[in-house]
Amino acid sequence: MTPLCAASVSSMRPFDGIDKLYFAMSEFIDALPTCGREGILRCHPDLAGRHAKTNELTAESKQEQAKAGLGNLTEQEASIIDSLNQSYRAKFGFPFVICARENKKDAIISGLKRRVENDKETELRTGIQEVKKIMLLRLKDLMEDRESKL
Amino acid sequence: MTPLCAASVSSMRPFDGIDKLYFAMSEFIDALPTCGREGILRCHPDLAGRHAKTNELTAESKQEQAKAGLGNLTEQEASIIDSLNQSYRAKFGFPFVICARENKKDAIISGLKRRVENDKETELRTGIQEVKKIMLLRLKDLMEDRESKL
Repeated sequence: MTPLCAASVSSMRPFDGIDKLYFAMSEFIDALPTCGREGILRCHPDLAGRHAKTNELTAESKQEQAKAGLGNLTEQEASIIDSLNQSYRAKFGFPFVICARENKKDAIISGLKRRVENDKETELRTGIQEVKKIMLLRLKDLMEDRESKL
Repeated sequence: MTPLCAASVSSMRPFDGIDKLYFAMSEFIDALPTCGREGILRCHPDLAGRHAKTNELTAESKQEQAKAGLGNLTEQEASIIDSLNQSYRAKFGFPFVICARENKKDAIISGLKRRVENDKETELRTGIQEVKKIMLLRLKDLMEDRESKL
């Protein structure tokens, strides 16, 4: 959820529920030119990548990656993911994005292996679908946090 | 310069000079739907506003606002700017954006007074022009910083 996505739909407030906000942000993303949708993917960090190693992830990314088991990789797994992330980025020009909360370590590694073989159009579409899943889960979390504070 | 703008043009690297990068980012902004261009404006802080008072501006904004003399407002000036910022935001649904480096305190206050009378379409267009001026000056700074470190 880049600041621009949220800022672009904010004039439509108040939203009648999370789903409406989610749909507005999804529509905004879909209306972006191709380079903008690629840009959305580029605003996401590599899974188990540089930002994870240097502890520069957002709190949300850190928690999501940890839950997927990416905090406990063997050296071999870390090296496989690194190498696949690099191949993926070199081929498509944007990072591999997957909803870590819906996948465990093994599913993520097999997803990377499979998806790196796709064409760019398929991966742009798939990556954006994953972004939307991540977005919906984070929006739901925000609402739960809010309700627990009421 | 929201991260999404930079991320969206990064596949066009290498850029043959600042102007080319500036034009690519400008084109990306112009290609956004209206809500996206409004979103770009909403990613900018109010001049001499809440973020300045609580010291939450980016280093660039802080320096730009200070150079324009916005760090040394009289109580009366601060109150006028506050009130105009609020009227502007209430009328248009986005904040007043002006290239602070090209304007001093007095020009900014008279600009606010004049521009709050415009219609929304004019202000969206004017605000985006100011965003592009800010962007170009910041890009030039980045290049100078880089060259001074070489």
